[in-house]
Amino acid sequence: MAIILGENRYGKAEVRVFRVTRSGDTHEVLDLNVTVLLSGDFTATHLTGDNTQVLTTDAMKNTVFVFSHEYGAMEPEAFGLLLARHFVSTQSHVSKAEVRIEKFDWDRIISKGKPHPSAFRKSGSMTRTATALVCRDGAKTQDFIVGGLNDLVILKTSKSEFRGFLRDKFTTLAETTDRIMATEVCARWRISASESLRLDHIDWAKNFLNTVDTMLGAFAEHHSHSLQETLFLMGERVLSNHPEIAAIRLSLPNKHHFAVDLSAFERENHNEVFIAADRPYGLIEAVIERDDPKTSSASSGSAVAHTWPAW
Amino acid sequence: MAIILGENRYGKAEVRVFRVTRSGDTHEVLDLNVTVLLSGDFTATHLTGDNTQVLTTDAMKNTVFVFSHEYGAMEPEAFGLLLARHFVSTQSHVSKAEVRIEKFDWDRIISKGKPHPSAFRKSGSMTRTATALVCRDGAKTQDFIVGGLNDLVILKTSKSEFRGFLRDKFTTLAETTDRIMATEVCARWRISASESLRLDHIDWAKNFLNTVDTMLGAFAEHHSHSLQETLFLMGERVLSNHPEIAAIRLSLPNKHHFAVDLSAFERENHNEVFIAADRPYGLIEAVIERDDPKTSSASSGSAVAHTWPAW
Amino acid sequence: MAIILGENRYGKAEVRVFRVTRSGDTHEVLDLNVTVLLSGDFTATHLTGDNTQVLTTDAMKNTVFVFSHEYGAMEPEAFGLLLARHFVSTQSHVSKAEVRIEKFDWDRIISKGKPHPSAFRKSGSMTRTATALVCRDGAKTQDFIVGGLNDLVILKTSKSEFRGFLRDKFTTLAETTDRIMATEVCARWRISASESLRLDHIDWAKNFLNTVDTMLGAFAEHHSHSLQETLFLMGERVLSNHPEIAAIRLSLPNKHHFAVDLSAFERENHNEVFIAADRPYGLIEAVIERDDPKTSSASSGSAVAHTWPAW
Amino acid sequence: MAIILGENRYGKAEVRVFRVTRSGDTHEVLDLNVTVLLSGDFTATHLTGDNTQVLTTDAMKNTVFVFSHEYGAMEPEAFGLLLARHFVSTQSHVSKAEVRIEKFDWDRIISKGKPHPSAFRKSGSMTRTATALVCRDGAKTQDFIVGGLNDLVILKTSKSEFRGFLRDKFTTLAETTDRIMATEVCARWRISASESLRLDHIDWAKNFLNTVDTMLGAFAEHHSHSLQETLFLMGERVLSNHPEIAAIRLSLPNKHHFAVDLSAFERENHNEVFIAADRPYGLIEAVIERDDPKTSSASSGSAVAHTWPAW
Repeated sequence: MAIILGENRYGKAEVRVFRVTRSGDTHEVLDLNVTVLLSGDFTATHLTGDNTQVLTTDAMKNTVFVFSHEYGAMEPEAFGLLLARHFVSTQSHVSKAEVRIEKFDWDRIISKGKPHPSAFRKSGSMTRTATALVCRDGAKTQDFIVGGLNDLVILKTSKSEFRGFLRDKFTTLAETTDRIMATEVCARWRISASESLRLDHIDWAKNFLNTVDTMLGAFAEHHSHSLQETLFLMGERVLSNHPEIAAIRLSLPNKHHFAVDLSAFERENHNEVFIAADRPYGLIEAVIERDDPKTSSASSGSAVAHTWPAW
Repeated sequence: MAIILGENRYGKAEVRVFRVTRSGDTHEVLDLNVTVLLSGDFTATHLTGDNTQVLTTDAMKNTVFVFSHEYGAMEPEAFGLLLARHFVSTQSHVSKAEVRIEKFDWDRIISKGKPHPSAFRKSGSMTRTATALVCRDGAKTQDFIVGGLNDLVILKTSKSEFRGFLRDKFTTLAETTDRIMATEVCARWRISASESLRLDHIDWAKNFLNTVDTMLGAFAEHHSHSLQETLFLMGERVLSNHPEIAAIRLSLPNKHHFAVDLSAFERENHNEVFIAADRPYGLIEAVIERDDPKTSSASSGSAVAHTWPAW
Repeated sequence: MAIILGENRYGKAEVRVFRVTRSGDTHEVLDLNVTVLLSGDFTATHLTGDNTQVLTTDAMKNTVFVFSHEYGAMEPEAFGLLLARHFVSTQSHVSKAEVRIEKFDWDRIISKGKPHPSAFRKSGSMTRTATALVCRDGAKTQDFIVGGLNDLVILKTSKSEFRGFLRDKFTTLAETTDRIMATEVCARWRISASESLRLDHIDWAKNFLNTVDTMLGAFAEHHSHSLQETLFLMGERVLSNHPEIAAIRLSLPNKHHFAVDLSAFERENHNEVFIAADRPYGLIEAVIERDDPKTSSASSGSAVAHTWPAW
Repeated sequence: MAIILGENRYGKAEVRVFRVTRSGDTHEVLDLNVTVLLSGDFTATHLTGDNTQVLTTDAMKNTVFVFSHEYGAMEPEAFGLLLARHFVSTQSHVSKAEVRIEKFDWDRIISKGKPHPSAFRKSGSMTRTATALVCRDGAKTQDFIVGGLNDLVILKTSKSEFRGFLRDKFTTLAETTDRIMATEVCARWRISASESLRLDHIDWAKNFLNTVDTMLGAFAEHHSHSLQETLFLMGERVLSNHPEIAAIRLSLPNKHHFAVDLSAFERENHNEVFIAADRPYGLIEAVIERDDPKTSSASSGSAVAHTWPAW
């Protein structure tokens, strides 16, 4: 039984490109971390060290810089798509190009009562992500976009219960009708392009902000019986409000805040003092999707799975 | 078109269990970081907040501690299998249990010229990983084991070339016949259980050490024309030496060491002084597998994909 | 020549206390990371293992939780002072108590157009720090407060030059009249209590916000000839605007953004495309203080040094 | 009252220099992270942006690379001393140069049963540190060396008690005669140069290894009544065995391992199953020194303090 090369890909990771666009004294900044990964016919270099089909990762890095120079301020979804299309269209042996982008936001510094035209502070409240995937499909190519975010830490001090759960012989947890619920949202949402909705015509900035607001609103208003229920609601609302989103994948660690037992000090702690725990933590992950025979993970798992990039 | 729950799972992540086993004055220590993830029928809690089918993640944590107490010193693959089988066998609505383990090694402190029976120093040179996966399959269950490691940083100062590569209009890299090759190995290998080889009879410690030695030897001895070639050779040797391993997946960042240009100081740098770069970095990933119609990723992608856990 | 115990201290580090204060449906949250360090007569435990003078670090942790329960929502400077005074006043062999606090800010989630009363998102844009130091001085005690912040990342795309610098034989840097200046501010400022200004009467929240705004304004408006000049100006403005601040210490890494050379691609990069570098980085550190014989670092170094806590 | 510039310094941090030295096919590697910090007369750049006295941090980086090229394989203490002397001797306005070095160790890969001449794996078990400090003192200069290490994680499962401690009203900790003691050693030791012992004649590699072995032996063999007692013994032994070491500073976090309460599962846990806790943690810090009126921290605090670099 021979030993063979299976799935493989390679590229340049974490190209930290920072783009300044000037309109007179008013400057815009765009701060991206770009990763390019190519799949295709790369058997020769693996098996014999023949590199004639290997585009250097150094050239990929250069391409990111040249495209940033050429195109200037852009939404990361659109920039990723341009890059991914470039690699597939110019390299006939590349069958798939994936471009993953992290976008770091900067806010204008408020000075003398107004936003400064060229001084900024980094906003640390979350990282926006965008993945563009271009796949060769015979003579044509297919484009996919997955939006997302990391590091959005949210917490609610009301309307969170956890009770009525299964009890096995290792269960000791007490039921509660009032707990802190906290999580760090990691989300990815797959855009569903169609005849009527071309990827090149989407307002990505608005799409992103609305998606975040939808999730925050659902989290804040919901009376939660489990983090699972909250997760599903957050995803369901996003899909309800965003016809262009086919599915959303959420990974929500349960950042436990335990009420401290103060009884040794003759005090009753009515959910006032908590310890924020590090490890272990609960972890809840799910995909929320449309019940569409063409795209649901149940019916056509493999193809769909390929359009979910790694976290 | 309804909005539905797709793939989902939940569990307790990063239970830091430390087990001491005593034989008189001689102590053994076992330091694990255990994550449990369950899949199955958890629709109710997501859709209605009905938790009657929800085993608490707190109970999973307790189970890890009780099993550690019960079974004592064990290889992580075997410990993970016990835990994963427990959840599937005791919870009829659980269809899949995945237990991921990181193992941190401790060496005995050498004192007065010999290994001390109860004092240890942590070995930081790599982290062993083991994933046990138990899937319900009708009335039966299937077991899978994936061994692996993270954080093994290796480097060679000879026998590494990179030339003859494709040149597009963004390629500026010079060819080289002598460069530093350095990487941080992240590996996962899938054990192929069979009639003749039961998972419960494998010597996991020996399997792990031999796999590491095989990879290190291939890396050291190989005259490399690309990191891809080295990656394939490392995987190919592991499969050649280990009939019990069906496939191996390697993720090798190219930790660039660039020769510093000293010409401004009237010095020629003959590959003596390098700067170790952080970002960006090349990234090479591939699966090496047996050409077996039953298991190869080309032919039956979906099933195989499910047995590769996340990194 | 005997071997003796020199300076020493001990305590509990990183007590993660999370305090909720409720006014009907409107909740306030206070998220702190508290470290307690005590100095005093702890020779016995070091030399003979006699622990009769050792307050357990576990008790320090309990004290943090009980004080949080007792006092509720408080500014970290005030909370730290209460804790530090407690340890010095109740333990006669403790000569100095240092309480270091990190404060993590949470903003209310905006839902249905208004701030939610009990749902929050973590603000990641900087971490406020506060150190309270209480020293026994004969029959009396002295209180010190040092405010501060970490992780405030700022950047300007205009008004930053760097030229006219010294050139030794290893200098190759080109002069520039237009560069990106970026840094991650780490600041500590020492409050000068006096007869007229009691520590217990300072509005700490306002003091903090004003100090940050002063630094941001100075950074944004200044036409900089060096990061040193900008650092001094930031500190000078803080002292000018804040009579209660005796001195400020700033540590400013120069987060280099290098313009990418695109000449190989027949493009001129007019400071539009930059690579954000990780390492190495410049590092500029200085104290800005009042020219006061009683407190300046030049004249009475030792005492002053003791009132600067570690970063 | 004027606002003035107090203590200040600047430099280049984290120059990652990797040096290969070849003797035929046998290669040696030296992997350093070098930080240079200069103090002196830098008032002009701070106050007016006049940079005529400012050596660029870019030139410092170049100097590190040129010196690495010139001198090849060297112990970090000696390399740091060469660099620090260079800056003070060539820049008359520099009064103090501090060079901090981290050294990352690499072991030869064992291949075909023997150490490979040019393939290496990174040893992650600790990081050696060295700080060289050269101070101008009138027409002469003074040299100081501080050796050290970070990240040495050690643990003992026997001979560790903690009892007889002070009990205040917040003390609930139970006494124990058998606990796990674990810590991550951060150590710095100051070399005392003298007429008879010139810094340039010390065998730094041997000095380092012996110091580590002394600390490990003391930790392993000692029957501990407190982490403070163990800390003092580790330091005392180092000073006893090393006449060239004037003082040692240790920072030992108490990495708590708590025995898990299994009583709810009708099991008694005889110190077999522990949870490794993250936060909070105890923290014990002390200087152990010689009772020498010329150097002890009690008598001449200020000067001594200046020779302790930051951690």
